[in-house]
Amino acid sequence: MRRLIVTSCSVLVVPEWGPCRVETDQDILVEDGVIAWLGPAGTGPDSAGAETVDGTGLVAVPGLVNAHTHGPMTLMRGAAEDVSVEDWFNERVWPMEVNLTPADVGLGATLACAEMLLSGVTTFADHYFHAERIADAVVRTGIRADIAPTYFSSRGRAALEESAEIAAALHGTGDGRVTASLGPHAPYTVEDADLVRLAEVADETGLRIHIHAAEHLEQTESSLARRGVTPVTVLERTGVLDAGALIAHGCGIVPDDLPTLAAHRDRTGVACCPKVYLKHALSPLTPVRSLLDAGVAVGAGTDGAAGHNTLDVWEAMRLVALTQKQAERDATWMTVSDTVRLATRGGARALGLGSRIGALEPGRAGDIVLVDLSGVHCRPVHDPVAALVYSTRASDVRTVVVDGTVVVREGRLLTVDLPELLAEIDARVPALLDTSHGRAVQHYDP
Amino acid sequence: MRRLIVTSCSVLVVPEWGPCRVETDQDILVEDGVIAWLGPAGTGPDSAGAETVDGTGLVAVPGLVNAHTHGPMTLMRGAAEDVSVEDWFNERVWPMEVNLTPADVGLGATLACAEMLLSGVTTFADHYFHAERIADAVVRTGIRADIAPTYFSSRGRAALEESAEIAAALHGTGDGRVTASLGPHAPYTVEDADLVRLAEVADETGLRIHIHAAEHLEQTESSLARRGVTPVTVLERTGVLDAGALIAHGCGIVPDDLPTLAAHRDRTGVACCPKVYLKHALSPLTPVRSLLDAGVAVGAGTDGAAGHNTLDVWEAMRLVALTQKQAERDATWMTVSDTVRLATRGGARALGLGSRIGALEPGRAGDIVLVDLSGVHCRPVHDPVAALVYSTRASDVRTVVVDGTVVVREGRLLTVDLPELLAEIDARVPALLDTSHGRAVQHYDP
Repeated sequence: MRRLIVTSCSVLVVPEWGPCRVETDQDILVEDGVIAWLGPAGTGPDSAGAETVDGTGLVAVPGLVNAHTHGPMTLMRGAAEDVSVEDWFNERVWPMEVNLTPADVGLGATLACAEMLLSGVTTFADHYFHAERIADAVVRTGIRADIAPTYFSSRGRAALEESAEIAAALHGTGDGRVTASLGPHAPYTVEDADLVRLAEVADETGLRIHIHAAEHLEQTESSLARRGVTPVTVLERTGVLDAGALIAHGCGIVPDDLPTLAAHRDRTGVACCPKVYLKHALSPLTPVRSLLDAGVAVGAGTDGAAGHNTLDVWEAMRLVALTQKQAERDATWMTVSDTVRLATRGGARALGLGSRIGALEPGRAGDIVLVDLSGVHCRPVHDPVAALVYSTRASDVRTVVVDGTVVVREGRLLTVDLPELLAEIDARVPALLDTSHGRAVQHYDP
Repeated sequence: MRRLIVTSCSVLVVPEWGPCRVETDQDILVEDGVIAWLGPAGTGPDSAGAETVDGTGLVAVPGLVNAHTHGPMTLMRGAAEDVSVEDWFNERVWPMEVNLTPADVGLGATLACAEMLLSGVTTFADHYFHAERIADAVVRTGIRADIAPTYFSSRGRAALEESAEIAAALHGTGDGRVTASLGPHAPYTVEDADLVRLAEVADETGLRIHIHAAEHLEQTESSLARRGVTPVTVLERTGVLDAGALIAHGCGIVPDDLPTLAAHRDRTGVACCPKVYLKHALSPLTPVRSLLDAGVAVGAGTDGAAGHNTLDVWEAMRLVALTQKQAERDATWMTVSDTVRLATRGGARALGLGSRIGALEPGRAGDIVLVDLSGVHCRPVHDPVAALVYSTRASDVRTVVVDGTVVVREGRLLTVDLPELLAEIDARVPALLDTSHGRAVQHYDP
């Protein structure tokens, strides 16, 4: 039996609702990847022989969940700035993606996993091409992910079936650290018949569906004008919501959509990624308050680094709180506790992993992040939860445990040779940025 | 003569307008605190005997300017979360400030200077009580600051004259690293007659005025309802704008105010601190685009850590860009170059230091920050300016030079015994938070 004990740490307790709190001087015992016991230091079961991580002076936080990203897009970080949404897709990103090889995706995914682990993200929901390469990176780096192979209807029905086969094959690999979802890109790039087929596959296989939908209000309005229904209604009618869906963005979710989503709240979640909405000058934002009131899970995401520049969930969750307070014109809403819950339990539920991760409790996975609040930018610590939301930097993460295995120790990633990885990426960059071919993987016209 | 050379670095060039760029393999020679020469490595004047800082692999950035803060409020970090503006002032901060001793202010200011230097901020504009203690911290830690002693009319005219004397005495101390401004709190807490008197003092002494004004639209509306004029017009009529003013916030600046501000653009600046506006659910935000179009200097600020939690200008400038893009509904506005300029030249101009700091150019102060963009969260670096705005963390700052003196080396602050400082602060915290006395330094009712 693999055993690991984190000793004498403080523990962030994230309840299902209400205020979070921090319990001091605790031990956490993980057995075969699962939290077996948690309580006052030195009072637990015999841990002789267990690998020991000294948590003295550190706060143990549930591993953060990045509820929506495209990991391999780290390769395009900073390559599409100060442009409209349309130009971002049509002039920059989709033309660059023509150049991507499976090997590139592997490199970019590995960089993404490295960045996330070093910053305390232990689980992410990915949506991209060459999903097997992403899974390889997940297995190798020691992180946890739900991976959806991206599908456009322009690729044809054979590609749909292939993407579904890939998802089914990946699901449950990496000792269970890899789960998979089906990945239709969006209602405006995937035909209804294909959504229906993927919902059938989901029903047959038990896989969920990860899809962009109602990304902004113009999309919803466009859908209403062209088709008479909102994107959420498209998901309902095609069976996607019955299958269980992770909806990326949802800034264009309108009040009429809420009863539909509420009816599927046991298996539907929304990922809010505010940095990219602000960068693309979008308004309104994901209606987080209405979604939570309707019982729908909401997680904090970064989207891809080509838009968000980082995969930093501390930054993402802080921006959710800041922008939601302003959007609701209520400074007392989106409390620090609600914010932390969004980036842990909320993200876990949104990914369909609500019972496995998202909190430090016996029976859940041993995904533990040890954070150092002793830096001058956090002191004095009047309120540790506020410090975690509004002061902590990714660089305050010291040690990261996933499934009971230490993958980051004292700020150093144990699973990747970073200089070698970065040299390979830098060598590949010129070819990746060359868009002289004049093609794109898809045209954006939602 | 004190001489320091930074060798073989990249240099961020921030022009007065247009795109920023990064020049590789440069040397920067600083003599007696002033940049004497900057150009291709190894081609400059003889630097034998100069202190050498190896800049290989690092980007030299002009020291960031925090255009508005209350440094000592680090002591209240995280002690007033999830409350309205009114409760923030009346129930939390102003009652806590009753407890502040001059010694507390010294501790909090030292912590603030430490946090800012470690994150690459070399200049800040402060507005607080016990200004001499802030100046002591500035002198001791090696940072640069413009300090305004806070004045409320409720303190009486003798206190006004005393605050003016303190400012005059502080101005130019610390080998010129300390400048001072007069510090009337705001038009809603300082009577017009007192503003007139301070404008006279400014005229006599050459000091400028740092004041909160038009902090949000409700204040402007309240001023119009009570007095028939906007806060900016109050500043104009009382002579404050003629004296030269740094206006904190300005979210309530209305179109009618713009010609007034434009007429004083050679000596008027505005500090935009978006994190606190979002936290307090305020809308609209500082009209940055209109102000820049009118030729008014705009800087990025953090406000005090009791609201902003950090004094991180990387975070502040990033939030300015993100929120301005959204507010203007234009993703192509507030480019990465405009954003960097705001946190350097813009802040310098807003503080009245436009010719001394804000850019790495011969004749300006040797305030140099060496940033490491080699971390996985910045790589690959397609666009170093975008990396500085959207990926860089305060923890990427390696070395900080102020006035030609190294104050942070390899991420370590050379001028403060941090463990001792933090122990003193932690011992003082319980008394500081005790508001059982039921008093406040002022009542908020703008």
